[in-house]
Order: sequence, then structure tokens, then C-alpha cells
Amino acid sequence: MNQETERRRFERSHDPGRVMAPSDGVFAIVITLLVLEIRVPDLTAGQRLADALNEIRPSFVAFLISFFVVAIAWTGHRDLFAFIRLTDRNLVWLNILYMLPLTLLPFGAALISRHAREKVALTMYGLLLLAIAFTRLFIWLYVTNRSHLLFEPIDRRSRTLGVLIVTVPATLYVLAILIAGSIPIASLWIYAGVPILYFVA
Amino acid sequence: MNQETERRRFERSHDPGRVMAPSDGVFAIVITLLVLEIRVPDLTAGQRLADALNEIRPSFVAFLISFFVVAIAWTGHRDLFAFIRLTDRNLVWLNILYMLPLTLLPFGAALISRHAREKVALTMYGLLLLAIAFTRLFIWLYVTNRSHLLFEPIDRRSRTLGVLIVTVPATLYVLAILIAGSIPIASLWIYAGVPILYFVA
Amino acid sequence: MNQETERRRFERSHDPGRVMAPSDGVFAIVITLLVLEIRVPDLTAGQRLADALNEIRPSFVAFLISFFVVAIAWTGHRDLFAFIRLTDRNLVWLNILYMLPLTLLPFGAALISRHAREKVALTMYGLLLLAIAFTRLFIWLYVTNRSHLLFEPIDRRSRTLGVLIVTVPATLYVLAILIAGSIPIASLWIYAGVPILYFVA
Amino acid sequence: MNQETERRRFERSHDPGRVMAPSDGVFAIVITLLVLEIRVPDLTAGQRLADALNEIRPSFVAFLISFFVVAIAWTGHRDLFAFIRLTDRNLVWLNILYMLPLTLLPFGAALISRHAREKVALTMYGLLLLAIAFTRLFIWLYVTNRSHLLFEPIDRRSRTLGVLIVTVPATLYVLAILIAGSIPIASLWIYAGVPILYFVA
Repeated sequence: MNQETERRRFERSHDPGRVMAPSDGVFAIVITLLVLEIRVPDLTAGQRLADALNEIRPSFVAFLISFFVVAIAWTGHRDLFAFIRLTDRNLVWLNILYMLPLTLLPFGAALISRHAREKVALTMYGLLLLAIAFTRLFIWLYVTNRSHLLFEPIDRRSRTLGVLIVTVPATLYVLAILIAGSIPIASLWIYAGVPILYFVA
Repeated sequence: MNQETERRRFERSHDPGRVMAPSDGVFAIVITLLVLEIRVPDLTAGQRLADALNEIRPSFVAFLISFFVVAIAWTGHRDLFAFIRLTDRNLVWLNILYMLPLTLLPFGAALISRHAREKVALTMYGLLLLAIAFTRLFIWLYVTNRSHLLFEPIDRRSRTLGVLIVTVPATLYVLAILIAGSIPIASLWIYAGVPILYFVA
Repeated sequence: MNQETERRRFERSHDPGRVMAPSDGVFAIVITLLVLEIRVPDLTAGQRLADALNEIRPSFVAFLISFFVVAIAWTGHRDLFAFIRLTDRNLVWLNILYMLPLTLLPFGAALISRHAREKVALTMYGLLLLAIAFTRLFIWLYVTNRSHLLFEPIDRRSRTLGVLIVTVPATLYVLAILIAGSIPIASLWIYAGVPILYFVA
Repeated sequence: MNQETERRRFERSHDPGRVMAPSDGVFAIVITLLVLEIRVPDLTAGQRLADALNEIRPSFVAFLISFFVVAIAWTGHRDLFAFIRLTDRNLVWLNILYMLPLTLLPFGAALISRHAREKVALTMYGLLLLAIAFTRLFIWLYVTNRSHLLFEPIDRRSRTLGVLIVTVPATLYVLAILIAGSIPIASLWIYAGVPILYFVA
């Protein structure tokens, strides 16, 4: 009985569900909050609503890009935790660090929707995407190195593959940041293109 | 043991609960965020609060319509997933596509609450409702065609019935969009009427 | 096996967890959104922050009252569903109706925080509280009359007690609405007092 | 069977999951709502975006501090409930009281981001942090004194340790409040430093 109690306590405090459920909560809230950054325009004298909506088109672009960034991160998180049998304190905190750029994404989306051609705005958005990619990479490197946290050990090849999946978009984001000042529109296209690339691949 | 581990991993990565729980999260957040689009009016000189509230009556109408749109989508989602035993990657993504117009609904509600007689506003709201209907239809067609994802195969008649349940409101929404320019008030009445029709039927 | 599958499908589609979890979601979101109605004041020339915060004191009062209204509704919902073994379609919809005034509460709180002495504001807030009370009563009357939905039948006395628990605050809310025009401050005190009464009792 | 039913009802009404899940919900929502307090600046004539973003730097500081305050509270809550086998009505309400300052944190963050050097703002923020610490302490003292709610009794030493873990940051917060008027910047540094201290320790 005492052993059983011990086991239940251990399981509860190391249960990946306790990490997954709140993460799912954050994903669901972020993906739903994005819409708040699309402001319904007030019409100025003589302005038609269609024109006013056309003016806030960058808001829709920023919404769509960010929606799919969160969705891809979400399914990636889901796939990642499908390997994980147990969590430990470090993993809990790595996961919280991963949530940090995610919760900032609605701000990033608002930034590029209102300052779509500004180098600073595009750079900050790119840095958020990079931070999401790298904190995810940290989790991957951490758990694949600790097979007692996994359902079964991950072989060398899968591990490298997991790193590449992060490296490719990260490289593109670095490129987008580098050209944010000179060709802002190309920078935005890269942010929009990476999710499309993901679906093609 | 190894087989047991394999089974647990498979179950976790194909568990419909991992799709249902976050979807429930999105439904709960969208239905609760709608209220943020009802702005408490500031009184202008000599204005009575009752009059000011009367002026924002379209906000309440848009809130109520959207509340029941989300609620009906929610119970429909619940009924749909009551058939589903396993998910796969496609289903996860179809479900995310279904969430896209849902998360945009608070914007749509804000749009028709502030521009209640504008063709563009009514059309965009109708397109959101159509998108919710069609993405749900895609999920239905996808799963009913893959009996290994279901608790038990769906017969031809139930499948057609499931299509009709979407087609009827979708047709009405198309009608509402077509008349949005000429008789905006009738368009709004259709949006309000479909949920009522749902309860009668 | 087929019977087992049937049982699992039945359980999933009648599982009160599928009603409780999203309701908990709505409660958690409403209680957390209330804070958005407390606006940080911008200082006018020469104004001290302490004075500016003092001016928005009604926002804090409205927040606190609404926080405890939601919290009491939440624990009440929890107690109610502790009796419920199965849900049916009607119960799902009664629960959604119960969510309607709850999701409107942040608007009600904003209304009384900015128009604390206005009859219309106090009346609307009271009507929201009444709607929460009555929709909860409907759920109570519905389930206590259908013992197949319960873990065990509810006896006549408990049933009446459950009605009284709703009737007492409802009566006070009606009183608050009636005096909202003549003695607004007393009306507000009743809204604040009912939660305190709840804790004393 | 009747006994089995009784047991299920008891378990459901005392299930810590029913307290943990909504608390996780509140944590997830608060941590995600914080971003709404970072407003994208509108540029005044001739202003560069980089300068405008620099001006709202206090918003980022307030966001980061509050993010880690919530994250630490979250993991602390998680650790606390790893000990708890059963809840009772008092524990449910202590937990709700603990949620009160947490839900107010986005307001506190907005307050110090817009009035970063104001004594009143820094004091209110500090009081929120103290309230989070003390309501958590109440929960700790309550459950450690009722071993029937725990998986196993907590010994005297662990209990005292649990008190100290709260007392140290609380003392620092009191200090920060005391110096908020004379050296506001030092006060802010303490709020930022406590989470760092937590990670070092």
C-alpha cells in the first residue's frame, strides 16, 4: 500500500500529462488571442468599409502566418511528447522557456501587422520564431539524451533528423532577419513560406 | 513489456483526446472572448446610458448569434468525435483548419456589430460561417471513409445524413451572402435564424 | 468486442467529463478575463497616480464581486456534477445556456465599474446574476427528476434544499434590481453582500 | 455496486484533478494574457519604430518578471499538489483565494509597465506578489496539518522548509515595498531578482 502510494505520487509528479495539458492550454489560448490583433476599422468620412478592410490586410497576413506557426509548433509539441514517458524538473522548465516566445507571438503579430515594412518589426518577429525553434531544439536534445525519460531510446539517426527539422526553418528565419532592412517584403515572404514548405515536405 | 510500451506510445500519438481537449479549449476561449467585442459605452454630454446601450444593440445581436454558432459547432464536434476511435496526422490538420474560421469569429462578430448594414461585413461573416461548415464537412467525409479510425463503420445513409446536416445551413448562408448587398437586414436574419432552425429540428 | 466498443462509444458520448472540462475552461477564462476591465489610468497633468487609482476604485469593486460570483458558481457547478453519472443532449444544452450569462459577466462588471450609480447598469448586472441563478436551477430541476442520469436518486428534501439555495440569492437580486433606481448604492451592496452571505452560511 | 457508486461519487467530489485542472487553466490564461499589456506603439511624426519600442521597454520588463512569477507559482502549485491525495471544500476555497492575486497580475504588470517609477505602482505590484506568496503558504499550512488529505504525512522539517521557501521571497518583497518610494529602481530590481534567486537556489 505504502509502495503503491509512493508509486502514485511519483507518477503524478513526473506525469507528462501535467506538462502537456497546460502546454495545450497555452497553445489554444495563443492561437485564439491572435484574432484580437485584427481591429475592426472605424470609417473616416466618405471611406468605404471595403477600402478600410483592405488597409488592414497586413493584419490578416500576420494572423495567418502566426496561426500556422502556432499550429505547427502545437503538432510538433504533440509529436515530441509522444516519445516522452516521464518528465523531470528540467524538462518542465525547458517547456516553460519554450512557452515564453509563444506567448509573445500575439505581440509579434501585432507588430508586423502595423509596421509591415519596418526592419525592427520584421527582425523582432523573426527572433520570436527563432526562439520558438531553438527552445524546441533544447527540449529535443535534452530528452533524446536521457533515455530513462523516453518510451524507448532514440537512435542516432532519428536524433540528427530531429535537429535538422529545426535547423532548416531556423536558417531561413536568420536569412529573413538579415534581409529585413534591405528587402522587407522578401523577409515577410519567408515567414509566410516556411509553413507552406512544412506542408509540402 | 516492449510491446506494451509500443502500444502506449501508439495510443498516445493517436489518442483523439489529444485533439478533443485542445479543440474544447479553443471553443471555450472563443465563446468567452466574444464578450470583449461588446464595449461599454462612454456617455457623451447629456446622453442617457439607456440610449447609449441601445446604440450598441447590434453588439448584443452579434454576440448572441456568434455564441450559438460556437455552441452548435461545439456540440457537433462532440458528436463527431464520439464516433472516432483513433486520429491520424491528416485528421489533426483537418481539425486545425476547422479551428481557423472559429478563431476568426470574434473578429466577424465585431465586424457585423459595428457595420451591421454593410455588405462587406455581412459577406465576411457569412464566409466565416461557410468555412466552419465546410471544414467540418471535410472532417466528416474524411473519417467516414476510413473505418479503421472509427469505433464502427458508418453506413451509407448516416454518411449522407451527415452531409445534409451541413448542406442545409450552408445553402442558407450562401443565400444570406447573395442578398447582403440588397437586403442586409434579411441577411442578418438568416444568420440569426439558422441556430433557431437547428433547435426546432 | 462489439459490445465493448458500443459501451465505449456510449460512455464517451454521455461522459459528464466532456461537459465538465469545457465548463471548467469557461469558468477559468471568465475569472481571468475580468481583470482586463480594470484599465491602468493615464495621468492627466498634475494628477497623482494614487488619485487616479482611487478614481477607478469601482473597477476593483466590480472585479471582486464578479470574481466571487464566478468562484461560487464554479464550486456550485462542481458540487452539482458530483451527483451526475451521465449526461444527455438536453443537459449539454442546459449547461450551454448556463454559460451564456457567465460569459457576459465581464461586460456586466465593466458596465457597473464605469457607471456604478446608473440604474440601467445595476439592473443589467442584476439580470445577469439572476440568469446565472435560474439556468443553474433549471439544470438542478432537470437532473434531479431523471435518476438514470445520477449516481443515486435525490430525495425530495435534498431537491427542495437545492431549490432554496438558488431562491434566496435570487430574491435578493430581484430586490437589488427593484431599488437600483432609487438607492443605487444599496443595490451594489446587495451584489457585494450575497457572496459574503454565502460564506457565512 | 451501491458502495462502488458511493466510492466513485466521493472520489469525484474530492478529486484533486478537479482543482488542479482549472488552476492549470488559470495559470495558462494569465501567463498568455500578460502579452496583451505590451501595446504596439503608434509612431508620432518623425519617430523611428526602434525608438518607440525603446520607450515601451518597461512593458517588456514587466512582462518578463510577471511571466516568471506565474511560471514559478505554477511549478510550485504542481509540486504542492503532488503531495495531495484528496481535496476538501476548504482546500477548494483556499485555492480560489490563491487564484485571486494571480488573476490580478496582468493589471499589476500593466501598472508597473506604464508607471515604472511610481511608489503606488511598485507597492501594488509588491502586494500582489505578497498575496500570491501568503495564500500559497495558507494552502501549505492547511494541508500539511491534515494528513488524511495527503499521500503520506509530511514531517516537521519538510513542513518548516515549505514555510521558509515562502518566507524568504516574501521578506524581499516587503523590503521592495518599503523602498518603493525612496529608490523605486531598486524596488523593481528586487522583483526581477527574486525569480533569478529561485533559479540559482
